[in-house]
Amino acid sequence: MTDTAATIKPGSSPHDVPADAPAEAYGLPLPPLAPPADPDPRRRSAAEEARTIMANDRVGTLASLTSDGDPWASVVTYATLPEDGAVVICVSTLALHGRNLAADQRASFAVAGPVPEGEDPSDCGRVTLAGRFVQPEGDDLEAARAAYHAAIPSAETFSDFGDFTFWLMRPERVRWVGGFGRMASARADDYATAEPDPVAPAAEYAVRHLNEDHADALLDMGRALAGHTDATAARCLRADRYGLDLELETPRGKTQTRVGFSEPVNERDGLRAATVELAKRARGEL
Amino acid sequence: MTDTAATIKPGSSPHDVPADAPAEAYGLPLPPLAPPADPDPRRRSAAEEARTIMANDRVGTLASLTSDGDPWASVVTYATLPEDGAVVICVSTLALHGRNLAADQRASFAVAGPVPEGEDPSDCGRVTLAGRFVQPEGDDLEAARAAYHAAIPSAETFSDFGDFTFWLMRPERVRWVGGFGRMASARADDYATAEPDPVAPAAEYAVRHLNEDHADALLDMGRALAGHTDATAARCLRADRYGLDLELETPRGKTQTRVGFSEPVNERDGLRAATVELAKRARGEL
Repeated sequence: MTDTAATIKPGSSPHDVPADAPAEAYGLPLPPLAPPADPDPRRRSAAEEARTIMANDRVGTLASLTSDGDPWASVVTYATLPEDGAVVICVSTLALHGRNLAADQRASFAVAGPVPEGEDPSDCGRVTLAGRFVQPEGDDLEAARAAYHAAIPSAETFSDFGDFTFWLMRPERVRWVGGFGRMASARADDYATAEPDPVAPAAEYAVRHLNEDHADALLDMGRALAGHTDATAARCLRADRYGLDLELETPRGKTQTRVGFSEPVNERDGLRAATVELAKRARGEL
Repeated sequence: MTDTAATIKPGSSPHDVPADAPAEAYGLPLPPLAPPADPDPRRRSAAEEARTIMANDRVGTLASLTSDGDPWASVVTYATLPEDGAVVICVSTLALHGRNLAADQRASFAVAGPVPEGEDPSDCGRVTLAGRFVQPEGDDLEAARAAYHAAIPSAETFSDFGDFTFWLMRPERVRWVGGFGRMASARADDYATAEPDPVAPAAEYAVRHLNEDHADALLDMGRALAGHTDATAARCLRADRYGLDLELETPRGKTQTRVGFSEPVNERDGLRAATVELAKRARGEL
């Protein structure tokens, strides 16, 4: 570690760390050696990250308040309304969380994204929504029921039991954490209007396939497009509709970088074509 | 559905359901046609279930209280102390949950077990612990640090940052839910002294292997040991140190049953031998 730009300077990190700590230890990127093709590749917004995590899971944790005002965390199945990402749950008043909500509707809801294969669990994406649950009525109830039944097959058995109630939360606060040091809040209206990333369900497979069969193409991207001309190995960490996050090995140390697609991918199965195009650009074939 | 014993009677279900609803719809077991070899096969206690879920994951959700007394759910990595299952987390005071805990130590912690392959997400096991987090000192701090570092490799990078604090909770309340209709609370001292099931890390593979390659042995167990002499097909739902949960198809409908091992399994890799012994017993070879 000789590059001073790769060293954390006092006050440059939100953490209380030694001033001369090596950047690598904190995941700070090394500077590229050549200008990158795109100096600021597009990333998903915090609102898009949150909508994406919420749209791709069915199990989350509700935090409600007991009659003593104590917090109570309980794992529940959920769905989201496709149009605005509102959270739908269906809980029994025979269960403590159901009684809690009936008495006090203040609540929070957290969902963890998948831990990438072989990665540290601290690297999992996660979202917290907070606000108040309401018992939906009319069109909201129909939408809530339809979304929940589509997500949770067994709901057909229990959702009409007399002790089960649908609850709907349109969050007032949205907090996204993408892993260590990647985090942001989103405005409630941005959350409501953001789109879940359509490629998210295909991303894990795509990342594994890229790493197993196309490490050479990733290395070309890291060298030619990200400007790390001295990179000796590359691995894809994450893929999304806007581009790829790469980890590169260089003689200067490991670093993370990002290469962006020329256009956002709009179809679930569109990652392959976008990645092929990126590899061709890296090789000067486009 | 003609068997009245397989029909829910008024008052026999905790749910407000029609009195003549078929048992199948609610997962109630059909009665066996012959006396089962073991009328009450041992199951994991709620405390064992809770310790097992806690010991086999590293990502859970903390419910803390904001300065307004609102609940705040946040996904965090955790470890448990091997001796009593106390929860260890390490969070930053730069994050809301860290500030929440610093101001009010009342908290709850929830962890979801894995959703069995092809099963409904409502079938995932889950646990809620509740109590107060403390900042461990002395031996407790050393034990917390050791357990957390063993579970979360990246802790080496961040746990000594000045803004990160270890917190430890020995729960006062323990609530386990095993899936739809399977649930119980555990006493705090039972949780502290219970042992995580040693076969849990191997159970998912064992269940898949049994279903793919030994469905005939499962059917023999269902007929000869569980007393469902008319069973036509069998599938293993869950395996634990005490036995197997089976789903059987019979001309009377589908049912769930359980067959117990002759002795609890005490080694992680002991499921195979115990299951072979069970199959031999079912075939009268023992």
